[in-house]
Amino acid sequence: MRKDSRSAVCRSFAVGFLMLCLVCALPVQAQTSNAAHQQVQKLVEANGANWKQVSKQIWDFAELGYHENKSSALLQAQLKGAGFAVESGVADEPTAFIASFGEGKPVVAILGEFDALPGLSQQAVPERAPVTAGAPGHGCGHNLLGSGAALAAVAVKQYMEANHVKGTLRYYGTPAEEGGSGKVYMVRAGVFKDVDVVLHWHPGDRNAVIDGGALAVTSAKFTFHGVAAHAAMAPDRGRSALDAVMLMGNGIEFMREHVPSNTRMHYIISKGGVAPNIVPDLAQLDLVARSPWNTTLQEIWKRILDVSKGAALMTGTTVEVTDIGSDADIIGNDALAQVAQKNLEEVGGYTMSADEQKFAHDLQKTFGLDTLPSLDQTKEVEPFHKPDPNEPSASTDVGDVSWVVPTIGFTAATFVPGAAAHTWQAAASAGMSIGQDGMVVASKALADTAVDLLTKPELIAAAKADFAKELAGKTYRSAIPEGQKPLIDYRTK
Amino acid sequence: MRKDSRSAVCRSFAVGFLMLCLVCALPVQAQTSNAAHQQVQKLVEANGANWKQVSKQIWDFAELGYHENKSSALLQAQLKGAGFAVESGVADEPTAFIASFGEGKPVVAILGEFDALPGLSQQAVPERAPVTAGAPGHGCGHNLLGSGAALAAVAVKQYMEANHVKGTLRYYGTPAEEGGSGKVYMVRAGVFKDVDVVLHWHPGDRNAVIDGGALAVTSAKFTFHGVAAHAAMAPDRGRSALDAVMLMGNGIEFMREHVPSNTRMHYIISKGGVAPNIVPDLAQLDLVARSPWNTTLQEIWKRILDVSKGAALMTGTTVEVTDIGSDADIIGNDALAQVAQKNLEEVGGYTMSADEQKFAHDLQKTFGLDTLPSLDQTKEVEPFHKPDPNEPSASTDVGDVSWVVPTIGFTAATFVPGAAAHTWQAAASAGMSIGQDGMVVASKALADTAVDLLTKPELIAAAKADFAKELAGKTYRSAIPEGQKPLIDYRTK
Amino acid sequence: MRKDSRSAVCRSFAVGFLMLCLVCALPVQAQTSNAAHQQVQKLVEANGANWKQVSKQIWDFAELGYHENKSSALLQAQLKGAGFAVESGVADEPTAFIASFGEGKPVVAILGEFDALPGLSQQAVPERAPVTAGAPGHGCGHNLLGSGAALAAVAVKQYMEANHVKGTLRYYGTPAEEGGSGKVYMVRAGVFKDVDVVLHWHPGDRNAVIDGGALAVTSAKFTFHGVAAHAAMAPDRGRSALDAVMLMGNGIEFMREHVPSNTRMHYIISKGGVAPNIVPDLAQLDLVARSPWNTTLQEIWKRILDVSKGAALMTGTTVEVTDIGSDADIIGNDALAQVAQKNLEEVGGYTMSADEQKFAHDLQKTFGLDTLPSLDQTKEVEPFHKPDPNEPSASTDVGDVSWVVPTIGFTAATFVPGAAAHTWQAAASAGMSIGQDGMVVASKALADTAVDLLTKPELIAAAKADFAKELAGKTYRSAIPEGQKPLIDYRTK
Amino acid sequence: MRKDSRSAVCRSFAVGFLMLCLVCALPVQAQTSNAAHQQVQKLVEANGANWKQVSKQIWDFAELGYHENKSSALLQAQLKGAGFAVESGVADEPTAFIASFGEGKPVVAILGEFDALPGLSQQAVPERAPVTAGAPGHGCGHNLLGSGAALAAVAVKQYMEANHVKGTLRYYGTPAEEGGSGKVYMVRAGVFKDVDVVLHWHPGDRNAVIDGGALAVTSAKFTFHGVAAHAAMAPDRGRSALDAVMLMGNGIEFMREHVPSNTRMHYIISKGGVAPNIVPDLAQLDLVARSPWNTTLQEIWKRILDVSKGAALMTGTTVEVTDIGSDADIIGNDALAQVAQKNLEEVGGYTMSADEQKFAHDLQKTFGLDTLPSLDQTKEVEPFHKPDPNEPSASTDVGDVSWVVPTIGFTAATFVPGAAAHTWQAAASAGMSIGQDGMVVASKALADTAVDLLTKPELIAAAKADFAKELAGKTYRSAIPEGQKPLIDYRTK
Repeated sequence: MRKDSRSAVCRSFAVGFLMLCLVCALPVQAQTSNAAHQQVQKLVEANGANWKQVSKQIWDFAELGYHENKSSALLQAQLKGAGFAVESGVADEPTAFIASFGEGKPVVAILGEFDALPGLSQQAVPERAPVTAGAPGHGCGHNLLGSGAALAAVAVKQYMEANHVKGTLRYYGTPAEEGGSGKVYMVRAGVFKDVDVVLHWHPGDRNAVIDGGALAVTSAKFTFHGVAAHAAMAPDRGRSALDAVMLMGNGIEFMREHVPSNTRMHYIISKGGVAPNIVPDLAQLDLVARSPWNTTLQEIWKRILDVSKGAALMTGTTVEVTDIGSDADIIGNDALAQVAQKNLEEVGGYTMSADEQKFAHDLQKTFGLDTLPSLDQTKEVEPFHKPDPNEPSASTDVGDVSWVVPTIGFTAATFVPGAAAHTWQAAASAGMSIGQDGMVVASKALADTAVDLLTKPELIAAAKADFAKELAGKTYRSAIPEGQKPLIDYRTK
Repeated sequence: MRKDSRSAVCRSFAVGFLMLCLVCALPVQAQTSNAAHQQVQKLVEANGANWKQVSKQIWDFAELGYHENKSSALLQAQLKGAGFAVESGVADEPTAFIASFGEGKPVVAILGEFDALPGLSQQAVPERAPVTAGAPGHGCGHNLLGSGAALAAVAVKQYMEANHVKGTLRYYGTPAEEGGSGKVYMVRAGVFKDVDVVLHWHPGDRNAVIDGGALAVTSAKFTFHGVAAHAAMAPDRGRSALDAVMLMGNGIEFMREHVPSNTRMHYIISKGGVAPNIVPDLAQLDLVARSPWNTTLQEIWKRILDVSKGAALMTGTTVEVTDIGSDADIIGNDALAQVAQKNLEEVGGYTMSADEQKFAHDLQKTFGLDTLPSLDQTKEVEPFHKPDPNEPSASTDVGDVSWVVPTIGFTAATFVPGAAAHTWQAAASAGMSIGQDGMVVASKALADTAVDLLTKPELIAAAKADFAKELAGKTYRSAIPEGQKPLIDYRTK
Repeated sequence: MRKDSRSAVCRSFAVGFLMLCLVCALPVQAQTSNAAHQQVQKLVEANGANWKQVSKQIWDFAELGYHENKSSALLQAQLKGAGFAVESGVADEPTAFIASFGEGKPVVAILGEFDALPGLSQQAVPERAPVTAGAPGHGCGHNLLGSGAALAAVAVKQYMEANHVKGTLRYYGTPAEEGGSGKVYMVRAGVFKDVDVVLHWHPGDRNAVIDGGALAVTSAKFTFHGVAAHAAMAPDRGRSALDAVMLMGNGIEFMREHVPSNTRMHYIISKGGVAPNIVPDLAQLDLVARSPWNTTLQEIWKRILDVSKGAALMTGTTVEVTDIGSDADIIGNDALAQVAQKNLEEVGGYTMSADEQKFAHDLQKTFGLDTLPSLDQTKEVEPFHKPDPNEPSASTDVGDVSWVVPTIGFTAATFVPGAAAHTWQAAASAGMSIGQDGMVVASKALADTAVDLLTKPELIAAAKADFAKELAGKTYRSAIPEGQKPLIDYRTK
Repeated sequence: MRKDSRSAVCRSFAVGFLMLCLVCALPVQAQTSNAAHQQVQKLVEANGANWKQVSKQIWDFAELGYHENKSSALLQAQLKGAGFAVESGVADEPTAFIASFGEGKPVVAILGEFDALPGLSQQAVPERAPVTAGAPGHGCGHNLLGSGAALAAVAVKQYMEANHVKGTLRYYGTPAEEGGSGKVYMVRAGVFKDVDVVLHWHPGDRNAVIDGGALAVTSAKFTFHGVAAHAAMAPDRGRSALDAVMLMGNGIEFMREHVPSNTRMHYIISKGGVAPNIVPDLAQLDLVARSPWNTTLQEIWKRILDVSKGAALMTGTTVEVTDIGSDADIIGNDALAQVAQKNLEEVGGYTMSADEQKFAHDLQKTFGLDTLPSLDQTKEVEPFHKPDPNEPSASTDVGDVSWVVPTIGFTAATFVPGAAAHTWQAAASAGMSIGQDGMVVASKALADTAVDLLTKPELIAAAKADFAKELAGKTYRSAIPEGQKPLIDYRTK
């Protein structure tokens, strides 16, 4: 199957090349916005078949964070083939890369992710059927994310060439979004320093602009060290690391009342002792904390550290905090949001085919929901609204990028309406035409917006003004310690 | 009733005086031990009626710790009347006093207590019947303790005079044994510095030597200070002092497994918040810790302080530790114990009268025990045995004295066999002839031993050698902070 | 002072009577809405001086829930004087009453409260100065609430008489809103059965319509019974009621993560043991739970009961749940809200005098706020918006009424902007002209709306339709047990 | 090495046979006790070399509980070779067996164990050096236990034959003593029904009689089942099994104060959740409880079950209790103890050779002890004393046997003095001559005692009388559920 899809990719290289030539034939003058959008959307469509294939291959690869070797290599090869210069292995991350085209200002960047999730291996069928039981799968649709972002980049590059548009277009291949905080190290390495605006998108079950939102998140392992002793013969000589874990858990529970209600703190006991007749000298709590606001989260995180220290003090043990991960919340940008909303509405959604509708209805039956959302959701674009900090939300390392560069994003209906991210149903959707249809919606909206930003300096100025306003009085800080390197093996350790 | 007993005391003053004259008539040479014992025991008997009356009056007074004004005054007056020089108000304790007779070495001291317990008011009848409901009562028999010790002192003084015995005899009036740690401040004030041996006794339901034992105890109030907030409107702005109390409690519970099994830690929540819709900014835990060994307790107490600090750290509150009380364990002295055991066996117990037996049987019916101890227990003396550190035990500030002076003690059967200390049944026994009979047993044993010590320097030398051996490598330290004054109002605050 | 204010009341009776005559002279036909509103607002103004005096007297009385004897009597006397028929002592509540005028349908009711809060005694001055330290005070402005509602009722009655409006107008004197759930027993007694619409208002620091909102609340005392034992001698024979309280607290803390974030659960330990050396055989936790939705709260309450049972099971103790109080959330009514919003906007706010502004600025200095709200807030009416279930909110027994009758309410700016309810600052505001000015705003809006409802049957029909829609699939149930009588002494027990 | 030791075993078969002949030549009359003891002790010595080899082979096998296939087979083959009839696979335990000789009354049984401990693989050298890292090892010396018991049995059989002693001698091969409760199922299967007295021994670091003692123990896995949910998106929909585990742990901690101080309860968290962003639907606590008295433990175990139920009730989860293991305490028998003590003193200890002393000193250096016991400990026999229920102790399934048959035992100095059981140091000792020397001491004491019991009916009568007295009012009950089969895979599951 991989061989087949590889030749499909090769075929679509050829198509892309032809398309490029077509584009070159177009007139060189500045265009009206609508005309420019139409042109770049056509380029997206022309390149679409190839990148759908790429998305399918990455879906097949289904590689975990920081180990997306084949996925990253495929994206790099494709973007090189399309004429981008590629720098790989940036920010101490083997699978991170930057693909560039053009030069000078403005610098517009599009983010691409491509890591899979453990345990979500699933065929592209509407019932639970793993390809390989227990293996990773694209339950968050990052195969589409990375490919759709690249599709937009390629189309915009072709548009820039055809229209002699100045400026720099970049594609950031960003690994390990799922818990690896890949972009945080990239931010820290300074690779976004000269970028004017960052564009991104994420698969979902509806079409909408993402203007802020996402929960800031910090996570760590709290390992307590005590003194072992025979639990029946000499428990008084032991200092129980498990007691410390228990008391840290208790402390967290008592803290819940005294943090903002929209805070999340959740943990497991990853090491809880070896044998009941030995006072455990080692125990570990694996904790995640989230808040709509990174600044608030930093205060809460200090208190969580105090809880861990208090638990150690109470039990005569010591505590070690390791494996720290952290993503910031996304800083909204209303100036960019206006442009993005207009563009997404112009692109519109897509209408499922009869086959897709059958697949979708079958899949929806597995949701266990009382009321199912209409399949028409894929056709529609949500009206603009700011995110409600009290609504449930996920976390993403796009947040950290948004604290250093004005950022705007989209979500597109790549999952059967009602399918939640991080489920096999999302993985199934991401591996077939529904996901790919949604991906093209996102690519077009990204491409339109990138073209706007490259050709209208006033938009970038407005974005920067809004950026300054949003961050007034706030400082970006990641909870990841200064010297920490990317935790390449965070999934396997 | 009080008037009556007062005149009874006056009458027995007269008896005492006559007795004194009788004693003076005795020959002046050194005597054999047995003869000496017979003589001093007779003096005890001769003074007995008066001191039984005194014990009854103090039983009537039933005054709480540090407020034993009438009880202390009566004892002082009686001892002055018997020829002792009295220094009162020592060690910043208004009701503490030292009554002295003689001069030079050796210095032998007898301890006397006289404080009552809250809520144990009880008539001298074998069913629950308070004199005044809710008022204090002598549920620990300290009315007998102080009087019996004084009876011994008076008899020994008379013996010393009659036999021209050299040396100093002292009676220490020691207030607030019940939770007030009265003797600790006396030790700290240095009033035991020149004492060679300390003798003491305590009411109980059997006749035995007390050679060590008693649990070292430290207690304090842990007050946490947080930040109040409306619990429904803004709980996140609050820092709950009650949370800290709860977590301190949890911390103590988790500690239990990791201290020696014979440790005791018990607490109440003395302040748990004012209204449920306000995050408590003040909460308090009132904790007592005990161990057979003061040195062990000191280590445990440090850990308890750490638990309180950990609880504060976990909750963003602060902790204040006040009202610290502490008694050490009793350091045994085997050299003295041998003498004491011999003397007690020589004295023997006492046999109840028919009326006393009736009272005792009636009282025993209220114990709710499956098997009742025999009334013969008052007749017998227990064979000598060292205390088992794993047996339940009480605490006493005699412990602190025993860390600075060689100390030996007795218990005598003043309570109906099976009656526990700190019960109304003990209070009833202590107010009638059973208690008074047992008191005389103790007085005789104390008097015999004092006479031995005053007349046989080798006994004091042996006691000191044993004392040095017992304390080798140990240092006396009270958990009561250096500058703390006696907590005169510890019962009422 | 009380005498003076009484004569002031007498004087304003006379004024009211004159006013009544004036009104009688008006023409009898139906009026346009605006004209009707103008007429009834004038009647409010004409009666205003008297009811301001009444509000001041109740402020002086400052009586706690179910013991508002003078306050209730004064309101009853005044309403009788104004021509209402009064039924007192309804629903087993000595201070509850219903004042009625007119007959037949429709039946429009206005709610009045008059209880004070413990500890908030305060003079009408802008610095902390209790009238009597520790005494109750009107920190929630219920002196204004009850008086302002009565003022509206009297004006509407006069309007009805003047315009021969048919129907029944009722004033419900509802005691013990603050934690006593007075209205719940009234609902249960059926006194709202024939009411078509209920109107209410509440003092605040802004002018707005209350269309739903308020947190449903349930509270109780959880008393655990164990077995006492000496904590040092025989702790194994004890079964600690305090342990049960601690574990119930722990259980509640662990529950927090698994209830909706906008739930509130808060508690104190009202009885935490008597002496640390006794294993507590009795301990008590006093708990309040809240949720935006009564139905959700009922589920949560069941789980809280399970936590208490679990704590008893864990500790070998038993649990008793007493003193149950409960208020439902307010069911909104959009049909009524439209009318109410229009009317409130028509009435508008009020402008502070120079003296009032001085008072307000002085008071604001005591708030400790970084940014202070503008005093202009009293002039403005907030645009209509539905309450956000995630915003902090209080609770009220108006909620229970709203589950059985269509209900709409207002808040008016009676407190200096920025003053929170249940503070001395609110009490100060409620005792002077600022509070009284705001009260008149509320009275006018209530009167306008009552007149609309009495004269426009279609409004009542719309209200009922909306009511049915809102409650579809929901059932009203109070957590207060069926047979429980009002807890008349809930404040003192 | 195994080959060598096998031929050694073969050789010693021959020796055994010769010895048997020697014995046959002895006179047949009844003997004085001393003479009998001398004779059977000589038989022990004669068979000693062979059984030392067997002990070494089992030490090499080092097989875990219920999987002691080679060890059991070797013992069975050896005992068959020595003339015993062997029944294997009794009580549903593949490695359990009974070897019998003789017939009729009395029936005297000797217990043999042979299971190893996980992770204690160790060469017979005085520094840490596993044979195979992580593999099992004989850290409790059961290789000696099973071999030494068999050596005694063989010697006693030879004595019986030589002296025409009537009665039945049995060797019980009892698997899985270490946590598998192998003997409990054997008791339940009734295989001890007709036994008059049971003898046993256990390796240790001193020579003494075991008259009772050992802690009763019950253990189980408490698995909680809840409802999974996304911990950030919908924690309110989850019911956390980990919360239940935490609250069960808390509940156990709060229980500690209210059980006898010599109780032990210790646990680990064997399953604490899979990923911190998922509310755990499964979590597990693995708990062991111990007490000096099985009857007390049963009461405590009920309370532990209540704690687990309370935790489930508090959290909306369910609890499953599986993998229940349980050993009773050992019921002492003073009549047998007298005989045993006399016999052990008669046998005496053994004196280490110079090489053994060197080994012992080297090993003692690894103990980390401040004061080391003298090597002379192997030479001495401890004076008789009843076990102190407050002293630390281990657990054994010999306890269950002692509840159904009068039982007495020995410990012998097989470990270098100061080496604790369940350490690599004990394993090292058990694999060389020190262990084997101690084993012979035990074999002789067992053999002497068996001969006494087989030849003096009055001893058995006395043992039975004492047994009846000890158990008066007590009933044997194992916490292992009625229908539960041996947990053959308890080590690997």
